[in-house]
Amino acid sequence: MNILEGLSLCEFTPKEEIDRRILRLKEEMEKSDIGISIILQNVDIFYFSGTLQKSILLIPIEGDPLLLVEKNVERAKVESPIDQIPIRNDREAKKHIERYVKKGMRCGMELDVIPVSLLRRLEEIVGGLEIADISRTIREIRAIKSEFEISQIKKSGKIVSLVFEEAKAYVREGEREVDIAARLESIGRMNGHQGILRMRGLNQEMMNIYVIHGISATIPSFGDVPISGCGVTPAVAQGPSLNRIKRGVPTLIDYGGAYNGYITDETRIFLIGEWGHDLFRKGYECAYEIITEVEGLGKDGVCATEIFEKALSIAKRHGLRQNFMGHGETKVSFIGHGLGLEINELPVITGRHRTILKEGMVFAFEPKFVFPCLGACGLEVDFIVRKWGLERVTDFPLDVVRL
Amino acid sequence: MNILEGLSLCEFTPKEEIDRRILRLKEEMEKSDIGISIILQNVDIFYFSGTLQKSILLIPIEGDPLLLVEKNVERAKVESPIDQIPIRNDREAKKHIERYVKKGMRCGMELDVIPVSLLRRLEEIVGGLEIADISRTIREIRAIKSEFEISQIKKSGKIVSLVFEEAKAYVREGEREVDIAARLESIGRMNGHQGILRMRGLNQEMMNIYVIHGISATIPSFGDVPISGCGVTPAVAQGPSLNRIKRGVPTLIDYGGAYNGYITDETRIFLIGEWGHDLFRKGYECAYEIITEVEGLGKDGVCATEIFEKALSIAKRHGLRQNFMGHGETKVSFIGHGLGLEINELPVITGRHRTILKEGMVFAFEPKFVFPCLGACGLEVDFIVRKWGLERVTDFPLDVVRL
Repeated sequence: MNILEGLSLCEFTPKEEIDRRILRLKEEMEKSDIGISIILQNVDIFYFSGTLQKSILLIPIEGDPLLLVEKNVERAKVESPIDQIPIRNDREAKKHIERYVKKGMRCGMELDVIPVSLLRRLEEIVGGLEIADISRTIREIRAIKSEFEISQIKKSGKIVSLVFEEAKAYVREGEREVDIAARLESIGRMNGHQGILRMRGLNQEMMNIYVIHGISATIPSFGDVPISGCGVTPAVAQGPSLNRIKRGVPTLIDYGGAYNGYITDETRIFLIGEWGHDLFRKGYECAYEIITEVEGLGKDGVCATEIFEKALSIAKRHGLRQNFMGHGETKVSFIGHGLGLEINELPVITGRHRTILKEGMVFAFEPKFVFPCLGACGLEVDFIVRKWGLERVTDFPLDVVRL
Repeated sequence: MNILEGLSLCEFTPKEEIDRRILRLKEEMEKSDIGISIILQNVDIFYFSGTLQKSILLIPIEGDPLLLVEKNVERAKVESPIDQIPIRNDREAKKHIERYVKKGMRCGMELDVIPVSLLRRLEEIVGGLEIADISRTIREIRAIKSEFEISQIKKSGKIVSLVFEEAKAYVREGEREVDIAARLESIGRMNGHQGILRMRGLNQEMMNIYVIHGISATIPSFGDVPISGCGVTPAVAQGPSLNRIKRGVPTLIDYGGAYNGYITDETRIFLIGEWGHDLFRKGYECAYEIITEVEGLGKDGVCATEIFEKALSIAKRHGLRQNFMGHGETKVSFIGHGLGLEINELPVITGRHRTILKEGMVFAFEPKFVFPCLGACGLEVDFIVRKWGLERVTDFPLDVVRL
């Protein structure tokens, strides 16, 4: 087995795909008068080059991009079609970067993730350049998925459907959330899950799976999510807990598929017996109605605010405004988030600011309701924005899974 | 179940522990003439406050520390003994920070992880302050573990021993690395593993478990580790792969325990049948000799360089210098790394720079040998530095696990 054979079950990013992405970035660089982009974050490097190896990606406004590879040269060569030069240290990097930069040139960098000390080190290399933040630009480019990317996202979604299907056998009375989560995560991994999920930004952490039942869905935490779970330690402070499954109380399984870099993120309700409280049923029915309504409303050109307002109005009509997307201090201001190589991509589906949906955007849509002292109920599905409407990523039904 | 009940199986960080840690930081701040530290990274906030909630931790050189909590206020109150004030936005944070800072004061921040755009936003708040990097100071303080921390690390180590014990039933001829890894990870999770491992810095990613067999141990990647594994996708580029277990070829299981924040990291060799190649046996025997020799050498006051040199000299004597800690370009310059709330803590056991071992340091020690076109062999154990010598974190034997 060599690298190629080892990775033979995954698609490498096609060259035309890379070329198109870089062209898009250059168009945006031109608008902002940026002469060169120096890309340093691993996910962005992967997006624009096809490899995640330790390197510096130079994208000059004119001419070909260049990947300065520190480690591993051999693997980067196999994975990326971009021109490459091996470097061993900052001094060698400097030598190559200097050939590209001219005095007074604006240089684009991902300032949302680049640590201060790394920029200071680079300033010794590219001293005197004006540094512009291109992170928003990169995130906007990445928000529009190609058909290649959508094919990867659909494969990621197949892992989600499979795990939901398997979950039917594992959600049992008396079982602990964390044990169900561990078993299902393992099944996902054995069926193509890449093992990790990525979330952009300082302190952004994400578990692969949240099995959250009853009261633990109401325990708040730091994350910008409607439901965090209690977790098993204050050192992580989220995720499945030691809470045991009871009859009549919905278990939410919120699972992040991840295949060849691409993340999906859906939630289904698993219920043993009948609804133990009418609020749970109402929460489910309202979430179901919101999703089916939005499915008929969303498409290329529609404003995300409209979708958020529509969902909120349905929640109000069901008398669930207080419970919509959390409760009290834990309420979040969005009902959907973009998906791709990271789980917090654009667009954000919120009432707070206008975003026009565009063809190729992919987002998770998660109407959820939290009932203090009781639990939570809700659903999450992933949509691809098309000219004609919204396409579902997975085909796993929205119905409550009755056990 | 409330937060307290939900987390009842984990210890909260004791108040005296927090007080001692803050006192240590203040001593170091005094030496560097730093008037206030503004701590923003979740792990450092957890270390100095006991909670991981979204907040800003102010540690002034005089007076009590203050936690400005954005989310979740209720949970932070339960988890941390530090004085707290809820904040809703930057404006409110500014109001509180301003009470602490004086013109010309030096302000300590974790510049190794704080993104540039976050610092720029804060500069609007604390404009005019001189910002000093306190990340090295914090990492040095965190390198010395208290007995409370060591007790947590030992519980983390128990998960590692348990997973190695279980592995005996899962390493079977014809099984894929990734399937074994998935099952074992699941067992660790069901037995107290917190679910994630943390590695400090941009682009630092780590899987919980590496099941690496034969040739896939020789496939290089970006990480600063002797053995990465092939992984299943270029988008992650490390970890267990689809490679199947063969008789006579050692399987390395490199597993990171993580309990209540604290990480352990050990490797054992699993072998079906007899050694299929004499180099594997030599690698194992050499690794075993290095560990037992170092166990008699290391203690408080000993220089880490001495340990590295000792290991290297044993490798040379066995004729394995070329294979020691990787091969060719993939060779790393260290043989051990500090463990704690992150997997890349201090000390680094390397020949490159002098570090004196101090009582309370905890490090993973990993003599490993890579044989191109064949595979790898090696061990990894965790040591606590004591006055009298090195104490093992786990009691799982170093012997090859024969199957």
